[in-house]
Amino acid sequence: MALIVQKYGGTSVGNIERIKKVAERVIESSKRGDKLLVVLSAMAGQTDALINLSKEITESPDPRELDVLMATGEQVSISLFSIAVKSMGYDCCSLLGFQAAIYTDHIYGKARIRSIDSKRILKELDKNRIVAVAGFQGIDEKRNITTLGRGGSDTTAVALAAALKADVCEIYTDVEGVFSADPNICSRARKIDRISYDEMLEFASLGAKVLDIRSVEFAKKFTVPIHVRSSFTGNEGTMVVAEKREMEKVLVSGVVSDKNEARVTISRVPDRPGIAFKIFEPVFKTDVVVDMIVQNTSLDGYTDLTFTVPRADFQKTMGLIKSIAKDIDADEVLGDEEIAKVSIIGVGMRNHAGVASKMFETLAKESINIHMISTSEIKISCVIDEKYTELAVRALHDAFGLGDEKAEA
Amino acid sequence: MALIVQKYGGTSVGNIERIKKVAERVIESSKRGDKLLVVLSAMAGQTDALINLSKEITESPDPRELDVLMATGEQVSISLFSIAVKSMGYDCCSLLGFQAAIYTDHIYGKARIRSIDSKRILKELDKNRIVAVAGFQGIDEKRNITTLGRGGSDTTAVALAAALKADVCEIYTDVEGVFSADPNICSRARKIDRISYDEMLEFASLGAKVLDIRSVEFAKKFTVPIHVRSSFTGNEGTMVVAEKREMEKVLVSGVVSDKNEARVTISRVPDRPGIAFKIFEPVFKTDVVVDMIVQNTSLDGYTDLTFTVPRADFQKTMGLIKSIAKDIDADEVLGDEEIAKVSIIGVGMRNHAGVASKMFETLAKESINIHMISTSEIKISCVIDEKYTELAVRALHDAFGLGDEKAEA
Repeated sequence: MALIVQKYGGTSVGNIERIKKVAERVIESSKRGDKLLVVLSAMAGQTDALINLSKEITESPDPRELDVLMATGEQVSISLFSIAVKSMGYDCCSLLGFQAAIYTDHIYGKARIRSIDSKRILKELDKNRIVAVAGFQGIDEKRNITTLGRGGSDTTAVALAAALKADVCEIYTDVEGVFSADPNICSRARKIDRISYDEMLEFASLGAKVLDIRSVEFAKKFTVPIHVRSSFTGNEGTMVVAEKREMEKVLVSGVVSDKNEARVTISRVPDRPGIAFKIFEPVFKTDVVVDMIVQNTSLDGYTDLTFTVPRADFQKTMGLIKSIAKDIDADEVLGDEEIAKVSIIGVGMRNHAGVASKMFETLAKESINIHMISTSEIKISCVIDEKYTELAVRALHDAFGLGDEKAEA
Repeated sequence: MALIVQKYGGTSVGNIERIKKVAERVIESSKRGDKLLVVLSAMAGQTDALINLSKEITESPDPRELDVLMATGEQVSISLFSIAVKSMGYDCCSLLGFQAAIYTDHIYGKARIRSIDSKRILKELDKNRIVAVAGFQGIDEKRNITTLGRGGSDTTAVALAAALKADVCEIYTDVEGVFSADPNICSRARKIDRISYDEMLEFASLGAKVLDIRSVEFAKKFTVPIHVRSSFTGNEGTMVVAEKREMEKVLVSGVVSDKNEARVTISRVPDRPGIAFKIFEPVFKTDVVVDMIVQNTSLDGYTDLTFTVPRADFQKTMGLIKSIAKDIDADEVLGDEEIAKVSIIGVGMRNHAGVASKMFETLAKESINIHMISTSEIKISCVIDEKYTELAVRALHDAFGLGDEKAEA
């Protein structure tokens, strides 16, 4: 008898008919004799509707109270789901964050799970009940309600799977799994059967929306096998698992693009110790997430500094950086919103040379200029003009042989 | 500095504009230097919308899960209210049932409050925060969410006022207070300035919708002064307080009617010890609330037994009683749904004779036949044909001089 955690997103529980379908699906799984723990998101559109309601009062609602409001979305989902399961003759019990004892820090709106006390959940599972836990929410040590931010239900599911040592955490979504490229951009994109946590981390952080990055971090830390699959078909999806030797034979697993960034450049920054701190400390303080940072080698005591931020934070960041530039006697601040980041990912890169040069060569062949480069052990990202995004993805997908045939070095 | 509990019903928080108005009103009160604890109901229509959602799944949703669903209504209200207060520059903190530590028994859908641990509330009040508590909800000893049933927010407010020894519990509603009769029936109905707990209990139990009966029981038990008033005007409403000597000078405080009952009669019941138990035990077990019970004096070893039940439970009760009648060799079961109960209430009755006869005389003058009579120390109820309800109320209101002038014996 296995213990399975299943997570269903907002689209999967978007209306009463779909909630019933999910209930049937969960019951089918439980009939196989497995213990079922189900994590649900809010019904699609519900989270936005609640935010809009609060915006009718003020543009900047109090974060604590906004979390209290938002947490109702998942509460509605799990109660309706449990009503559905019970109406079909199976035992079920819903648990909210405070009941499932999901403890977080106290950063409202983007809390992190600190610990889970699984006593209550285990007790309910032992009664042969299907247990439905509200995703996205927890409580801090003072029992204030917190929410984990967008995509938080994935993290709830993986964290529960880790706490309960579940055999697998199935993430049900509206796609069939993780693909070698966005099928909307690249028609030859292929579903990946198995992928390592590290690769999945890169996929998630580089713009693939399929899994929330924090959930993958959790899964890696506690070696929770994740199965990303469609809630609309019975097909096998993508297994996200610990790295295995044979994975290294595959040079590149996928190509990911992200149009959600903007670039800021400060030119002729006096190159003194502590200058990066002086520039970025105020930015970090505003909670803007800085992604790539590139600093050129210093020439004659001056350097250029370029970084990317989420496009939504671009104007705010430009304002801030312009005033900082004055303080530190830098020359000029330039910004560009029309950029994209294109990345290739693969654990095989660790042991193969020449991957980067192949990427640069491929882009050059298509006359695509590279503005910034950032590399890690298992990924290479290039910032290019936004208009070349789709062309770049398709060219790289072809160049690394990611189509229907397996990739070869 | 006083501690004031204010409760606002669903109509008062029916939309964002009204929630803002309530926030302004509460802030005005707090500016007078008082500590404010605010209890809110769900936005009008919300509770029904949630019930309907569950009915799309099944006609009889699981009670535990239905409570989880219903509890979201008040959660939305208190978070939006707190967002509004904070956006106006005042400090505020919302608390759900589990955070406010409102402990109930485990009867889902109609739980009773057992205890309140006021530590957290006091802590927030001490920080000079307005505290907004979700009405209608609590948790049982296993931390399951429970709801108190319709009107439950009144009880939450009074129970909190009792636990915190508040100076007054203000119940804001869409009427100006408690009236000597329903103004829709009786145009000369007068707002009552002060009324005793016992009278209010009778008003509430006899069909006046203004306060939930359990909240009045709580208020009486802990001597919490209740102020029933309108959330749309600044007028003084009705104070519900401990009985004072001068109240006894008023013979009758008000006339109340209730069309929500039905009558069941079992004729020629063999008059043996334990027979009433045999009849009513199965009825009580189905959770049907039996109101008036009248048993005639036994003639030749047989008696007639008549009682009233909520009209919604009439068919169910008739079916049950017919099968019981067979078991106990009773003759016949008769039912009537077209009845009404008309009652007069007043603590003055305790010390005045002739009130009952004046009531019977008044009804007789209008040729209204009385089917059942039930009396207590401070009220007399008569069951009559439904069609005479309004006529009876007006006649009694006039007869006891309840109009613009004070009542005189």
